Amino acid sequence: MHALSKTAVFSGLSTAEILQVLNGIHYQLRSFEPDDMVAYAGEECEDLFILLEGKVRGEINSMEGKSIVISEIKAPSSFAEGFLFARRNNLKISIRALTDARIVFIQKRYFSRLLNENPRILENYLGIISNRFIIVTEKLNFLMIRNVKGKLAYYLINQANAHKGATSFPLGRTQEKLAELLGITRPALNRNLLDLKKMGIISMDKKMLSILDRQALSSLIQ
Amino acid sequence: MHALSKTAVFSGLSTAEILQVLNGIHYQLRSFEPDDMVAYAGEECEDLFILLEGKVRGEINSMEGKSIVISEIKAPSSFAEGFLFARRNNLKISIRALTDARIVFIQKRYFSRLLNENPRILENYLGIISNRFIIVTEKLNFLMIRNVKGKLAYYLINQANAHKGATSFPLGRTQEKLAELLGITRPALNRNLLDLKKMGIISMDKKMLSILDRQALSSLIQ
Repeated sequence: MHALSKTAVFSGLSTAEILQVLNGIHYQLRSFEPDDMVAYAGEECEDLFILLEGKVRGEINSMEGKSIVISEIKAPSSFAEGFLFARRNNLKISIRALTDARIVFIQKRYFSRLLNENPRILENYLGIISNRFIIVTEKLNFLMIRNVKGKLAYYLINQANAHKGATSFPLGRTQEKLAELLGITRPALNRNLLDLKKMGIISMDKKMLSILDRQALSSLIQ
Repeated sequence: MHALSKTAVFSGLSTAEILQVLNGIHYQLRSFEPDDMVAYAGEECEDLFILLEGKVRGEINSMEGKSIVISEIKAPSSFAEGFLFARRNNLKISIRALTDARIVFIQKRYFSRLLNENPRILENYLGIISNRFIIVTEKLNFLMIRNVKGKLAYYLINQANAHKGATSFPLGRTQEKLAELLGITRPALNRNLLDLKKMGIISMDKKMLSILDRQALSSLIQ
């Protein structure tokens, strides 16, 4: 159970404190073998899942034999947190063990009690679901912008905003990571940055990027 | 302040209970005129906003004069809930008053206190951000599926899952709403449903839809 203190849910609590907290509620500790199903898409999410050991993956269409892997989760980590308190709480994906795995199941009503009684766990959990929300919202915004220059412009304006509207700021990611985010190759990213430079919209100096014409940049977002 | 009892955050509490709860904390009640800015994109979200009267809209690029409207919010309603507890809590959109508007601002630390002290407000708030997460996740999943038949198949399998894996279930939305969700016209939706019928994958009877070949249906999701 030592791994619990390394999860975001129990971050900031000592193992002793966590054991004390868990003493006051019911929970299940279950073991899975490789390829065992942990939960099926469509099931109502009634438990918080905390993976203590091993790896699981989220997949769709597992009932038909064929499966598309959506995500891999490594211990220690909770998962499916966004579903637990949603009105439509049916899991969108199935969860399958990839290795031997041990998972703590905490029923919603008991986990609610922890949230009510422990301000730190509450703060942690609000952070987890809010961060997930932000990540998904950003992905969605990117996908809704159709062309690469628009996506790049959207990214740069968000970066400027994150630096309190400064016109110069670091790129914020390696070119590799940024290319990945935009769904293009690194040379393509470079080409697009150079285009913006030639258009007099940005300038680049080592790791710093400057927006020279914010209006032109934002007009690229469609 | 009567409108507060109609917001999701305070749902289930009487006006008297809400006033009692608010008595224990600091908050601001601010008035806005049409076209006033309530918050700017890029600002850190440090308050819960509760719109008591009037209408506001979320928009991007407002600093350049040009603006793209993202959403309109009518009183009584809270907004930007997903940002308040996120690590990267910079607002993605600016908020502008559309009409005369009155908005309650509750600072994060005071709202945290309400969440810690009142289980009902906590449950409401967890529901709000979780529901937002689910909506954005579903939109994202739809966008990631490239063709219309794939989107339709994904929707139908989710509907079946939401009915505990039943093979027959109601369509769940009017054809108009479903067409909108899929980003196509109503005739195009009809054509696609008919295609699936001809392929022997589904049958339709008034408001009920039956999946005849789940494997074939799920193989349409790319």
